[in-house]
Amino acid sequence: MPIKVISGTALHTPTRGRLEVLENVHILVDETGRISEILPSDHPRLAEVRAHAEAQGNLTELQQGQFLLPGFVDLHIHAPQWPQLGKALDASLEVWLQKYTFPLEARYSDLAFAREVYEGLVEALLANGTTTAVYFATIHLEASLALAEICLTKGQRALVGKVAMDDTGQCPDFYRDADASTAVNETRAFIQGVRELAGCEDPLVRPVITPRFIPSCTDSLLEGLGNLAEQMDCLVQTHCSESDWESRFVQERFGASDTAVLSRFGLLRQNTILAHSNFVSDEDLTAIQHKGAAIAHCPLSNFYFANAVFPLRAALDKNVHVGLGSDISAGHSPSILDGCRHALLASRARQSGIDPRLPPDERGISGSAVSIPEAFWLATAGGGEALGLPIGKFVLGYKFDALVLDLNTPGSNVGWFPNLDTLEDLFQKLVLNATRSNIVMVWVDGAIVARSPSIHL
Amino acid sequence: MPIKVISGTALHTPTRGRLEVLENVHILVDETGRISEILPSDHPRLAEVRAHAEAQGNLTELQQGQFLLPGFVDLHIHAPQWPQLGKALDASLEVWLQKYTFPLEARYSDLAFAREVYEGLVEALLANGTTTAVYFATIHLEASLALAEICLTKGQRALVGKVAMDDTGQCPDFYRDADASTAVNETRAFIQGVRELAGCEDPLVRPVITPRFIPSCTDSLLEGLGNLAEQMDCLVQTHCSESDWESRFVQERFGASDTAVLSRFGLLRQNTILAHSNFVSDEDLTAIQHKGAAIAHCPLSNFYFANAVFPLRAALDKNVHVGLGSDISAGHSPSILDGCRHALLASRARQSGIDPRLPPDERGISGSAVSIPEAFWLATAGGGEALGLPIGKFVLGYKFDALVLDLNTPGSNVGWFPNLDTLEDLFQKLVLNATRSNIVMVWVDGAIVARSPSIHL
Ligand SMILES: [Zn+2]
Ligand SMILES: [Zn+2]
Repeated sequence: MPIKVISGTALHTPTRGRLEVLENVHILVDETGRISEILPSDHPRLAEVRAHAEAQGNLTELQQGQFLLPGFVDLHIHAPQWPQLGKALDASLEVWLQKYTFPLEARYSDLAFAREVYEGLVEALLANGTTTAVYFATIHLEASLALAEICLTKGQRALVGKVAMDDTGQCPDFYRDADASTAVNETRAFIQGVRELAGCEDPLVRPVITPRFIPSCTDSLLEGLGNLAEQMDCLVQTHCSESDWESRFVQERFGASDTAVLSRFGLLRQNTILAHSNFVSDEDLTAIQHKGAAIAHCPLSNFYFANAVFPLRAALDKNVHVGLGSDISAGHSPSILDGCRHALLASRARQSGIDPRLPPDERGISGSAVSIPEAFWLATAGGGEALGLPIGKFVLGYKFDALVLDLNTPGSNVGWFPNLDTLEDLFQKLVLNATRSNIVMVWVDGAIVARSPSIHL
Repeated sequence: MPIKVISGTALHTPTRGRLEVLENVHILVDETGRISEILPSDHPRLAEVRAHAEAQGNLTELQQGQFLLPGFVDLHIHAPQWPQLGKALDASLEVWLQKYTFPLEARYSDLAFAREVYEGLVEALLANGTTTAVYFATIHLEASLALAEICLTKGQRALVGKVAMDDTGQCPDFYRDADASTAVNETRAFIQGVRELAGCEDPLVRPVITPRFIPSCTDSLLEGLGNLAEQMDCLVQTHCSESDWESRFVQERFGASDTAVLSRFGLLRQNTILAHSNFVSDEDLTAIQHKGAAIAHCPLSNFYFANAVFPLRAALDKNVHVGLGSDISAGHSPSILDGCRHALLASRARQSGIDPRLPPDERGISGSAVSIPEAFWLATAGGGEALGLPIGKFVLGYKFDALVLDLNTPGSNVGWFPNLDTLEDLFQKLVLNATRSNIVMVWVDGAIVARSPSIHL
């Protein structure tokens, strides 16, 4: 028998660009947190299923004005940068890194500081509906393990990486790995540590091998981490082709693109998460698709720091895995709903261009705009595919990672006019205007992980 | 003696681009709603002033984690489009107008419908901190007067326009003025009606002459409205040079730009509000500056419908008055804080460009980015200057239109780390991450017009 039953209307995008409304369904969740059945409102077994769940206190019924959505997948978060969310974004990238970011990340040698920040971060992301988070931590083994442990304790599905960065020319003295072999050994210890914490079978939290980006790593570190990925069958994440400077640096050092270099070192693997990838070529996209790697599109930080916007449509047309990343704190918003809006804006900026002095056909790149259901897919099912995890949609066998959006919370900016709006209209209104204050309940793996004090459920 | 005293730390941008922190001040507001004194914490009369205000129940003391900001000025709102906020933004402009917007606006012949929508709109905007709103209503005299009356009743500073549109080729049969003279006469009646409602001396709500945009008006309507503006000394608002299609249409009809045509018809006047103005030339900007007219920059709808982004920096460099507009509902957000973020993104998109295939110096327009204090200035003092009203900053003689942002509300995404953040840092965090849920109290003209149920004040 199922251990949980959730009844209500669910909105999701099981295939890219297509909204599916599951009106008045009962979703049954088994003891492993997976969806075992989805029953329509006229199903003959419904009364029996409801009675049984109710008797056990396992029936959750959504109320008028409440809607069930898949939880959000955030493919790119710098956990230690949480305290500077929204700070110093008027600074240049150089100042932002050297004066703010590296000194802040260096503080995570202090485990108490790390724990305090990371607990606040994981709670805030869950409250924003981020049920799966992919984290860069810092170079510190203990603090990075603490982040993994906090995700486990608070019930967030997570991929956590201890950052590796050893190049003395590119990393500050006060914040880098001692050398390549130390970094590889500590990464190995980190992988083992997380696997011990989380268990091996269907773990909620997994380790990720995390070279910061090619410029901050020596060849021997890149090689060592590539070998480690193969030996320990471990996921990889890194930054890829983010900016002019970075792309040129890698091209000059290796005579090849970031993607080609990562591939050469064995770091471009199935479900490797490449943050940004703004400056990838068509050949790079083909290679990424061929390896089954994925791109974390971070539209907000594209605007602030990347010098250009990721060619999202080109990647989707090549069937490259793509999801969204908040890029905290180069991105100032912790909300992947905001991420949907930023992806829409970035795609439309590419579509229309920005300079009215140019003739229309020279201004933008036609065909670039994505639709609201496409943006939502990136935030949910697309992110799940990027990671190779059964999450992001309401489908049998998928994990019940979900949230309830409530239209009637205090502070809601979602206006619903039932006489004027279809459920498709409402879906658009939710994606464009819902905020954290509308999110009243969040599940991961079938367990409640966040709940608003004002909820009526 | 003052009738109100508010104590706390205030953050504002009295001059463009410069944050001023008024730490622990007492702001005294007189019976006309104007700031009469701003006392520092060591002022000798402070104890006396506090005692007096407290005795009369007129002392409001901000608590730890609460900050006073100027209220927001929204220079461009289509009030009747409120029910479709966030809807149909994947549609083309043509479909959005013909299938959604015009049929919706036509419904405001129903006064009961109009009242219900407008009450919800004004309440929502006040709760979002919009203390001054510039509205396009519809072509309907009664419903437009109802909007003015609702603003008065709820205490929102507002400029309200009955829309004029009479061109049979451009306006749908079911939604246009009967002819030019009817439109001019009804506009005159509307102006008189609002002035009677609001009173003549320092009125909270004022009428605005509102030709929808040049293409929807015949020459005789434009001429009649220009004469009316002069005769009745009334403000004007319209759309200006929004899109490729529109600019070309006006150029073909008149052999001149929107700005030149508006000037020719006497509609480009002191404090005329021109929405969008994306395709203005340098000569247009000079004319706008020379007349003392102003631009409502609507960055969100620029991305969705305008085919390009307004050259904000060029306008600021010419000392043209500029403020922000939400452009509800071509813009999906009712929040001018969101407007600040969208202005930042739009300016940065112009700065960096969007196409990574181009060389960096051909990609964007160097110098375009605006800073966070500049964006906030646009949302407050800049909007006030655009309207010629003494609002948007904490300065003697200015109106006390203000709000309290609270960092500790449920659902807040503003993270404050007092050991790590200066008040300048906090200001940036507020501008980038505060939402309606952080706004706990709002004043217009010294009177409380919105108050969150969760407030501790
Ligand atoms: Zn990053
Ligand atoms: Zn408009």
